[in-house]
Amino acid sequence: MEDRELRTLNHMLFMEHYTGGNAGLFMKMKRLVYSYQSPYQRIDIFEHPEFGMVLVLDGITMFTEADEFMYHEMLVHVPIFTHPDPKRVLIIGGGDGGSLREVLKHNSVEEAVLCEVDPYVIEASRKYLKEMSIELDNPRATLVNENGADYVRKFKDRFDVIVVDSTDPTAGEGGHLFTKEFYVNCYAALRKDGVFCAETEDPFYDKGWVAIAFNRISSVFPICRMYTSFMTTYPSGMWTYTIGSKTFDPIKDFDEERVLDFNAPLRYYNSEIHTAAFALPNFLRELTGQF
Amino acid sequence: MEDRELRTLNHMLFMEHYTGGNAGLFMKMKRLVYSYQSPYQRIDIFEHPEFGMVLVLDGITMFTEADEFMYHEMLVHVPIFTHPDPKRVLIIGGGDGGSLREVLKHNSVEEAVLCEVDPYVIEASRKYLKEMSIELDNPRATLVNENGADYVRKFKDRFDVIVVDSTDPTAGEGGHLFTKEFYVNCYAALRKDGVFCAETEDPFYDKGWVAIAFNRISSVFPICRMYTSFMTTYPSGMWTYTIGSKTFDPIKDFDEERVLDFNAPLRYYNSEIHTAAFALPNFLRELTGQF
Repeated sequence: MEDRELRTLNHMLFMEHYTGGNAGLFMKMKRLVYSYQSPYQRIDIFEHPEFGMVLVLDGITMFTEADEFMYHEMLVHVPIFTHPDPKRVLIIGGGDGGSLREVLKHNSVEEAVLCEVDPYVIEASRKYLKEMSIELDNPRATLVNENGADYVRKFKDRFDVIVVDSTDPTAGEGGHLFTKEFYVNCYAALRKDGVFCAETEDPFYDKGWVAIAFNRISSVFPICRMYTSFMTTYPSGMWTYTIGSKTFDPIKDFDEERVLDFNAPLRYYNSEIHTAAFALPNFLRELTGQF
Repeated sequence: MEDRELRTLNHMLFMEHYTGGNAGLFMKMKRLVYSYQSPYQRIDIFEHPEFGMVLVLDGITMFTEADEFMYHEMLVHVPIFTHPDPKRVLIIGGGDGGSLREVLKHNSVEEAVLCEVDPYVIEASRKYLKEMSIELDNPRATLVNENGADYVRKFKDRFDVIVVDSTDPTAGEGGHLFTKEFYVNCYAALRKDGVFCAETEDPFYDKGWVAIAFNRISSVFPICRMYTSFMTTYPSGMWTYTIGSKTFDPIKDFDEERVLDFNAPLRYYNSEIHTAAFALPNFLRELTGQF
């Protein structure tokens, strides 16, 4: 049996080609547990010998269980702690449930809507990604199967925080979530002091999209700031996020005390990281025009 | 000719297996320009279709020309700006010249000693890595071909700053530069207000070494702090560095004005990044015991 296991280990390799196609990450696959072509995208889940389960959409790594906390904590807690009293939160994408799990760590949140276009992602996550899907049945959560760009159009002055947990702009349905029209509709769906946050790609392989997303968001929201976090199995390990805000500044209006009083377990985010994440290296200052 | 070029591009692949062997980065090779087994290590230099030249020692990527600035600027400017008046700087390792180039951007530096054990790295860098080796003949630079652990033992109360630009602890001669004995000798070779800084690996694939290096350095220096930077083609993209200091605290004693007055071009480091880099995610706080 051990020999057979070893053969499997050595024979299956997942290779993600990064933008440009000239580099990428490879990961050994212990076993492929799920593989399905949904109406929206190809979904693969495999077990890695060290990183636990790995979710892949259209050939792009969404996360490994070993490092998903970096991405999900930083995508969610930075905008949530920017808003002084977030009650209604909308998550667009993120059908795996990782962002929802982080949102529901906040007791102030009364309603968290998860709008995922692809029901097969939710189904697969429930079955194979137990750490991700743990809050999908929380009574404070509402699951909606709809294109996020269409869904957000229905609301005016409704949400305190909108979090966009999308795939890449060039994969699956991700493209809809990087248009100016979408950002305008998010602005309208937010209450008068609402906070928007989106993942906005990596600035080494995909700097074009980083600049496009930032410029579009900053053309819609009066306060706009980019921040970064490590995300060790994403392209380049350097991930950007962009906050668009109507009233609250994520740095100047940040109340450190709320984080210090926060009881839920966090493995990445803390009050120092919140502010430090907005310090941009010079090449990112230039890319975004933020100094 | 174009067809031939394309064939080459598609057929040569560099694959770096990260610690554990279950994941890694692959890069296409446009052409291999240098490959040599020196007495110390295997040295390869190839041209990548996007990233320029790539230096590889014992199968481990030292840098690509596209992102080396992240590593070299953060390894050098954080300790140099921690010291108020760095005159004598010792670089251990770094035979490519990248760290030396950054050190010599500081006009206060009168003497920069580069101690590289492997003369073939220096020779190859002069020939193929023009952006790295640009300052190797600067009159303020002294090149020494010697094992850094042996060299540093000769000095007492000599240097203002020591920068350790080593290979991994498990590769080539890197292991000597991760011992407590070496850190003790660096302490002795530093002047009474000297500052030490070393690259201390990535905390995703190599967290064991991150903890070992930090604990050893903190057992020798009264002030010890870890910081991080992105380094997009290193394992996980998340790199750690550890400062050991006799007198000056890299955060409390940091003089932002000196950075604002600094004229040399920088693509990563700035005064906000200096302080922000010391904000550690929770899992790194736990790994190092720093809160």
